[in-house]
Amino acid sequence: MTTPDNAPDKAADAPAEPTGIAAQDWAQASADPQYRAAVVDLLGALAYGELAAFERLAEDAKLAPTLADKAELAKMASAEFHHFEQLRDRLASIGEEPTGAMEPFVAAYEGFHKQTAPSDWLEGLVKAYVGDSIASDFYREVAARLDSDTRALVLGVLDDTGHATFAVEKVRAAIDADPRVGGRLALWARRLMGEALSQSQRVVAERDALSTMLVGGVADGFDLAEVGRMFSRITEAHTKRMAALGLAA
Amino acid sequence: MTTPDNAPDKAADAPAEPTGIAAQDWAQASADPQYRAAVVDLLGALAYGELAAFERLAEDAKLAPTLADKAELAKMASAEFHHFEQLRDRLASIGEEPTGAMEPFVAAYEGFHKQTAPSDWLEGLVKAYVGDSIASDFYREVAARLDSDTRALVLGVLDDTGHATFAVEKVRAAIDADPRVGGRLALWARRLMGEALSQSQRVVAERDALSTMLVGGVADGFDLAEVGRMFSRITEAHTKRMAALGLAA
Repeated sequence: MTTPDNAPDKAADAPAEPTGIAAQDWAQASADPQYRAAVVDLLGALAYGELAAFERLAEDAKLAPTLADKAELAKMASAEFHHFEQLRDRLASIGEEPTGAMEPFVAAYEGFHKQTAPSDWLEGLVKAYVGDSIASDFYREVAARLDSDTRALVLGVLDDTGHATFAVEKVRAAIDADPRVGGRLALWARRLMGEALSQSQRVVAERDALSTMLVGGVADGFDLAEVGRMFSRITEAHTKRMAALGLAA
Repeated sequence: MTTPDNAPDKAADAPAEPTGIAAQDWAQASADPQYRAAVVDLLGALAYGELAAFERLAEDAKLAPTLADKAELAKMASAEFHHFEQLRDRLASIGEEPTGAMEPFVAAYEGFHKQTAPSDWLEGLVKAYVGDSIASDFYREVAARLDSDTRALVLGVLDDTGHATFAVEKVRAAIDADPRVGGRLALWARRLMGEALSQSQRVVAERDALSTMLVGGVADGFDLAEVGRMFSRITEAHTKRMAALGLAA
């Protein structure tokens, strides 16, 4: 329902019935040490991402033009923190040290945030919206290839935090008030996408278990061509979102 | 139970039975427009304080030396945000615009935080601990003079967020490792207390309804001499906490 534009491709992409890993629960699937390592990587990356999102939103709250906007950003930050807690608790419950699982991804997130520090409130909103949407698209794609327990957790923490609607309304209003803002923010969104891709490549190059899972070394039905299609779906969705915002991607 | 040192004064200070406002609920007490205005001020000040605490803790999380410390600070920030939500919702439910109620206190909090930006992780922890403790002491003192509904809300949001224990352990360990740190942090704590008093005076000077309530113009049994004793109890408690931390106040 949330991606009606992909409907024509659905028949080709969607498996009729879960097979392989997707048909198993965590107890069964985690017997494979390589799958287990890939999931620990995935949960670690997602957990640190939520913690970094908390920090970024709290930081953006300082730029908010009104107290009501500030409270709205603080609310989103707090929601991200509760997602972080769930992921950290899952890592602990499967016997992994959460900070150990997160450490390998700190550099990529810090690199991304350092290269894309917003210079004002609107850039912060666009960044939050673009970043969340891309991450959410990516994790939803990956979720279909996960065991049932991990899948439920991942989809749960991607629940909408109200972010998108808030950001879209504020950015549209700003562009209506001053159309030149649209040009600046379109450039900004392109830079964000470029930097996100560059940091993703870094992670893929460094994390063998995770990358092997993505290219089908573990979960079946997920080959390199499918990874390519996944990235193009994510890029297309980004382009459509930017157009809907009034920004040429 | 939490202030055994005040026990000898108890008989003189504590009313035997709630009387006046303290014996009433909000519906009764708020019929007095001046009491109502004082409570709106109090809730607005407390709400903005929680929002500012959220921001400060999220900011301090960036200075955290480990991921586990960062997560701990983020947790406290999130707890402060939920306190803020309760206060904001109460303001809305009594028909007050929450941001309007908070606005008058923004300058004092911003002034305090601007004058006391921590330069490192330990200064941040001491600030969080000192600030929270003083605010908590103050609101507990005031709570006894509030109607029963407002009192329950105020005491609820002052529930320990785990802050104090965390800060005390970290600061003590740092002083054990390098005793010179103690001298620097003791100076810092003095500066915090001085700045807090100076901003409080600013609020008292500007907010008539609130100040009148504090000096007994509304709630009975709360005269100017009692306000003096209240400030000395708060200052003494601060001195004892600093000594327990290994800092000469």
